[in-house]
Amino acid sequence: MSDVILTSNQYGKAENRVVRVVRDTQRHELVDLNVTSQLRGDFLAAHTEGDNAHVVPTDTQKNTVFAFAKDGIASPEAFLQRLADHFTSEFAWVSGGRWAAEQYGWARIHDHDHSFYRSSPETRTAVLVRDGDHTAVISGFHGLTVLKTTESGFVGYPKDRYTTLQETEDRILATDITTRWRYNTMEVDFNAVYDSVKDTLLTTFASGYSKGLQQTLFQMGQAAITAHDSIDEIKFSCPNKHHFRYDLSFCGLENPGEVFYAADRPYGLIEATVQRKDSPADESAWAGIAGFC
Amino acid sequence: MSDVILTSNQYGKAENRVVRVVRDTQRHELVDLNVTSQLRGDFLAAHTEGDNAHVVPTDTQKNTVFAFAKDGIASPEAFLQRLADHFTSEFAWVSGGRWAAEQYGWARIHDHDHSFYRSSPETRTAVLVRDGDHTAVISGFHGLTVLKTTESGFVGYPKDRYTTLQETEDRILATDITTRWRYNTMEVDFNAVYDSVKDTLLTTFASGYSKGLQQTLFQMGQAAITAHDSIDEIKFSCPNKHHFRYDLSFCGLENPGEVFYAADRPYGLIEATVQRKDSPADESAWAGIAGFC
Amino acid sequence: MSDVILTSNQYGKAENRVVRVVRDTQRHELVDLNVTSQLRGDFLAAHTEGDNAHVVPTDTQKNTVFAFAKDGIASPEAFLQRLADHFTSEFAWVSGGRWAAEQYGWARIHDHDHSFYRSSPETRTAVLVRDGDHTAVISGFHGLTVLKTTESGFVGYPKDRYTTLQETEDRILATDITTRWRYNTMEVDFNAVYDSVKDTLLTTFASGYSKGLQQTLFQMGQAAITAHDSIDEIKFSCPNKHHFRYDLSFCGLENPGEVFYAADRPYGLIEATVQRKDSPADESAWAGIAGFC
Amino acid sequence: MSDVILTSNQYGKAENRVVRVVRDTQRHELVDLNVTSQLRGDFLAAHTEGDNAHVVPTDTQKNTVFAFAKDGIASPEAFLQRLADHFTSEFAWVSGGRWAAEQYGWARIHDHDHSFYRSSPETRTAVLVRDGDHTAVISGFHGLTVLKTTESGFVGYPKDRYTTLQETEDRILATDITTRWRYNTMEVDFNAVYDSVKDTLLTTFASGYSKGLQQTLFQMGQAAITAHDSIDEIKFSCPNKHHFRYDLSFCGLENPGEVFYAADRPYGLIEATVQRKDSPADESAWAGIAGFC
Repeated sequence: MSDVILTSNQYGKAENRVVRVVRDTQRHELVDLNVTSQLRGDFLAAHTEGDNAHVVPTDTQKNTVFAFAKDGIASPEAFLQRLADHFTSEFAWVSGGRWAAEQYGWARIHDHDHSFYRSSPETRTAVLVRDGDHTAVISGFHGLTVLKTTESGFVGYPKDRYTTLQETEDRILATDITTRWRYNTMEVDFNAVYDSVKDTLLTTFASGYSKGLQQTLFQMGQAAITAHDSIDEIKFSCPNKHHFRYDLSFCGLENPGEVFYAADRPYGLIEATVQRKDSPADESAWAGIAGFC
Repeated sequence: MSDVILTSNQYGKAENRVVRVVRDTQRHELVDLNVTSQLRGDFLAAHTEGDNAHVVPTDTQKNTVFAFAKDGIASPEAFLQRLADHFTSEFAWVSGGRWAAEQYGWARIHDHDHSFYRSSPETRTAVLVRDGDHTAVISGFHGLTVLKTTESGFVGYPKDRYTTLQETEDRILATDITTRWRYNTMEVDFNAVYDSVKDTLLTTFASGYSKGLQQTLFQMGQAAITAHDSIDEIKFSCPNKHHFRYDLSFCGLENPGEVFYAADRPYGLIEATVQRKDSPADESAWAGIAGFC
Repeated sequence: MSDVILTSNQYGKAENRVVRVVRDTQRHELVDLNVTSQLRGDFLAAHTEGDNAHVVPTDTQKNTVFAFAKDGIASPEAFLQRLADHFTSEFAWVSGGRWAAEQYGWARIHDHDHSFYRSSPETRTAVLVRDGDHTAVISGFHGLTVLKTTESGFVGYPKDRYTTLQETEDRILATDITTRWRYNTMEVDFNAVYDSVKDTLLTTFASGYSKGLQQTLFQMGQAAITAHDSIDEIKFSCPNKHHFRYDLSFCGLENPGEVFYAADRPYGLIEATVQRKDSPADESAWAGIAGFC
Repeated sequence: MSDVILTSNQYGKAENRVVRVVRDTQRHELVDLNVTSQLRGDFLAAHTEGDNAHVVPTDTQKNTVFAFAKDGIASPEAFLQRLADHFTSEFAWVSGGRWAAEQYGWARIHDHDHSFYRSSPETRTAVLVRDGDHTAVISGFHGLTVLKTTESGFVGYPKDRYTTLQETEDRILATDITTRWRYNTMEVDFNAVYDSVKDTLLTTFASGYSKGLQQTLFQMGQAAITAHDSIDEIKFSCPNKHHFRYDLSFCGLENPGEVFYAADRPYGLIEATVQRKDSPADESAWAGIAGFC
């Protein structure tokens, strides 16, 4: 027992699927979240001795999530902040934690008052990490697939004995945008900035000629940070979803960029971080997030 | 060997992911399909003796799919028809087959000429089954999640010793619409009818008070067939995606239909077929389609 | 309303995840099922009028599944039979239905009395379809991936202008076995026959030279029916999971069947039914099962 | 442009599905990997200017993976090391990278020489992170589901107004083991240690009474580190897969721990790190791995 120690740890209830209906008027609203709550603090005895005196049950965390939803959900980020405030103030030994949410977007069916369909291609994400007095908020999304049918190429790369790729100045560029950005303040209209960042990324992706996905991601990150003072850092983890021009010469057909085979695996995987110059980094906030370097 | 016989069989290449770009003008178009081709006919010797003289390779079927895409894809249904015509006319022993496609919907990013994002929540489906002179075309979609926050109830059901459910006249009704409809003609604007059926189903779902998902599905089917002379039959396989009112009495809160827990499993599963009166049935066309009775 | 009619329909509760522990002695047993119950019969008024007087709630079906589990689960098939007997005898208007189960296999950790790990690669399936006095039982499994590194080829097939495939007499043959077989009696030791069929299929797959997946599937089906008098029919829906020999000539290496790229899509899809000669068919029993022709 | 900077970044080819057959004798061997290669170094110009002079194509990385497989794959870890050595020595501006692999386990069908089935419930993982002279190797697995039917409880936890959970001294404990451990040396028989760690974790899980999943994970980590001098740190990210005792009182039945409902979401999520005392930490090695704190 003396040879090993417990270091980082957290626990809680994951994927609480809470749907909040606002029905104060005939025109209902709908907020659809998947909330995870995990606590950090002094939980040593639970691990080493099975002493649960500090272990706020994951079931209690679940009940709290649903009870707090009764008071309304202004934004995923605000909701997570309330959970963080509650658990760190209610229990002396809870010094921090990690709270996360996914949000699914719904739209009205023909502007109906209480009938909706799930409309958003992307899943919105939010993470709040608290450690004592420090709080980091990281927002983002995944699942937004974009594609441009031209104005993309890849040339000028190094060749060695394992290189067979041909240069091209006209290819399909396609990716699923997975991105997360870190705020430098809590004084944000999180919903408005979310919409704005998404729009900025889409607009940047569509614009201009892409010399490579690295360049495109950097441009997207640059645009997002430049447009939003509240954001210090943005990360991308984006597949290069290959669309291979199908060789139709076997039957005498040319294929000038018209017929493509959309491949599954393997795929390119491009990951990059763009940061506001001279802003502080916050590496620990990103721990446990898959696929970002 | 004499004790067993080969009965129904089919084979081919599944999930050919073909993307067709139309680039005749600066304003590009994009068609994104997942095509499966399977042949039926005289393939007995391949099974019993390993004699492949009749086995048009699945690889050849793949090449054919991509080669035909070069000529354009007006609709999934028309594309499948061309494949069926080709294989049944090219090879004497191919008497029929099953061709299927999924289509993924894309929209322009801010009306851009060649930049798109994958926008449709639902996946469009098409199946063409040919047996000699008979051809059946079944279109549909899956993955369209709809929800109404009120105007739904469930009362008047029988009770026995295993019944604990409480009656309610105000609940959330939510489902993923999975539907397929069978045409009675090939003289159809398949894209236009697709859009119209989808719209009809959404409108019907949104309208009125639902006494049960069975009633809602029947109304949806009735509306689709009534509005479209070209459709004889429509099937639904729809989960009742339970949204349970979370009991908040443990902390003294009431919950008048505001906070819900969205459950995963188990779920209700309601399946129904609505058919045009006096129209012919075509049971064999539906074989191999999951989750429809 | 008079223009359309309700035809086939069924409804119930899907995916009841029931785990039954047998703890009569210190050496516990574990049965892990995913049970779906769907009723058929006179449910017209529910669809056309929203009259639920016949609608045994899906929630009641769920409660019944868990209550019946208390009495023990000898086999998935026997459990489904008990459900069918109950619902068709308890409610006069329930004339039949469809009951299905998946079973997940567990093994003891080092022969421990009450600690287990989920060991089976395959998922066992069972379906019971009842229509009045007629009952069909279909058992099977999916998810068993098999591969032979040699003794497989594909030659002698027809060529046309779309053919580019090269003949080979040494390739990898790999598939995920998805199979279902239909019993001709309920007087079966379902667990013993399940184990025996699985073993028969594996043994047949491993044996001899394969001239094509069609031949292999037929041999597997023939072996299963020949070995088991209680089985009249067996179906396969099996992908040809392509393992392409990676061309290493770019760096001067030969590749005599040593380095393969395992592709995802597209894949061959071979489906076949083998039936005991002169036995009756039962097409309606197979309705709604995906991927079998 | 001057306002933002590029910080961490990496790119490469993900999920190269390479299958290596060893066929030097009649008794073939099979290694089945999913390999990801990502490079780090001086790639600034690619991001800021679209200058690809340093961008070793992801396609070249793919070719390299398959070419190296020709020489054999002793273990995933050794294979990743060879890739790291190659890329960092071949290209001056490549100062490091991240290489990862999943391995799928196969067993012989009845001890057959060249026929196999995919047998392992768990997926083996390996990650090698190199930064200049420093190399970290992290091995692990996921997907191993374990369950004990008794000898588990949860008592003594704090209660507040949101607590409704009842204490219990007899429950099912079930989890999917996802674990990763970090080596302190490359002088390891990676395959042997992998088997040993897996066995140690299973044995520890099975043994004794569990006062909580936290305690069980700590015991598992302690056992692994104590038994293996080559391991300095082990992390767990494990769901508490709830199995709720189904209340059968509605029909007059007792349920003394025999009938359970296996729930999907929400679930407990317990994450912990156990480290060899006085050993160095290596936080950067863990970046980008999901679900570990």
